Amino acid sequence: MKKVAVILAGCGVYDGAEINESVLTLLHLAKQGASYQCFAPDIMQMHTINHLTGEEEATNRNVLVEAARIARGDIKALSALNVDEFDALLVPGGFGAAKNLSDFAVKGADMTVQAEVLASCQAFAQANKPAGYMCIAPALLPKVYGQGVQGTIGTDADTAAAFNALGGDHQQRAVDEIAIDEQRKVVSTPAYMLAESLVEADAGISKLVAQVLKMA
Amino acid sequence: MKKVAVILAGCGVYDGAEINESVLTLLHLAKQGASYQCFAPDIMQMHTINHLTGEEEATNRNVLVEAARIARGDIKALSALNVDEFDALLVPGGFGAAKNLSDFAVKGADMTVQAEVLASCQAFAQANKPAGYMCIAPALLPKVYGQGVQGTIGTDADTAAAFNALGGDHQQRAVDEIAIDEQRKVVSTPAYMLAESLVEADAGISKLVAQVLKMA
Repeated sequence: MKKVAVILAGCGVYDGAEINESVLTLLHLAKQGASYQCFAPDIMQMHTINHLTGEEEATNRNVLVEAARIARGDIKALSALNVDEFDALLVPGGFGAAKNLSDFAVKGADMTVQAEVLASCQAFAQANKPAGYMCIAPALLPKVYGQGVQGTIGTDADTAAAFNALGGDHQQRAVDEIAIDEQRKVVSTPAYMLAESLVEADAGISKLVAQVLKMA
Repeated sequence: MKKVAVILAGCGVYDGAEINESVLTLLHLAKQGASYQCFAPDIMQMHTINHLTGEEEATNRNVLVEAARIARGDIKALSALNVDEFDALLVPGGFGAAKNLSDFAVKGADMTVQAEVLASCQAFAQANKPAGYMCIAPALLPKVYGQGVQGTIGTDADTAAAFNALGGDHQQRAVDEIAIDEQRKVVSTPAYMLAESLVEADAGISKLVAQVLKMA
């Protein structure tokens, strides 16, 4: 059975991991016969957003503690991730990927990736193990893989330009399609950068999971 | 297109709506061609649990605000639910159903259902519109439908005894099965009362959604 590490960025589209994308990722891993372990960095979120009003909350939350909600408590601090124990890596999206795993949401092409996240993602790259990034999470790819890495990021021109300015090679894909960087074993899909329904998100994510497991 | 109201009890298995069950419910509604609107009561949670440690947090959270995370912000206060606008009702589980939608987790057979929740659920019963309850949410059924209502609640003897003491007629089912109260048009499934994986939960929930839509 193939083992996959999943990095979550919190719990909620506006300040954490996109919940639908995260659950669909875990669902398709299980359906396709893989096992998984969820991880998240033990750091405070950039901020906490009231998902009803869209306003910032007065008190902030911890990424690992909130991500534990999606994982039903079965989650480990990202510092415990040992690449030798896994065959592949998956990173769902949500603003948390651009606010907690990195600061892409604030700094765009001047972004940096959180240190533990960068080390973990680069470990899979260096081990030549496949990885799948969805939604806004491919924004991490140029810092992880370097110049020329191919990835999806939706259809917004400014976001795609920032991805390319970082050194990425943006691949425009429909919501139910994936981009495959064969050389680097990186798969990506737009998910909720484009999805207008769970069915649309599901279509791309199921393909992404299948492709990553095929390369693992 | 059939329209379904979904009542969420927060966001997280230990103090709110079970996230996997909620997402799978919405996924199967969308896959099976129905539209949906999420609702949640605008009340404070019974308490807030740190899902990493299992301990109670010092500050509590609002059920509607947290449920908005699952619904990506597209959610309404339960007070706005008008049964005339919907063909069916779905209630995912998680401890929130027994802590926020009712006090079954604390009071067992002496439980009461939160007033807005009771009124909303009874409105569907009185309109003879089908409803689906999963996981621990069927604990609400005796108060909603009265003596003799059939429902699943897993295999724990004490929980089943409490369900029967409330006036329910407990139906033992496997995780991938549903119970159908044909007279009352109520469908239930054990979901995470028994599920040990997302695939197991998915099997029962997909059948529940299909059956409810068939009766709608």
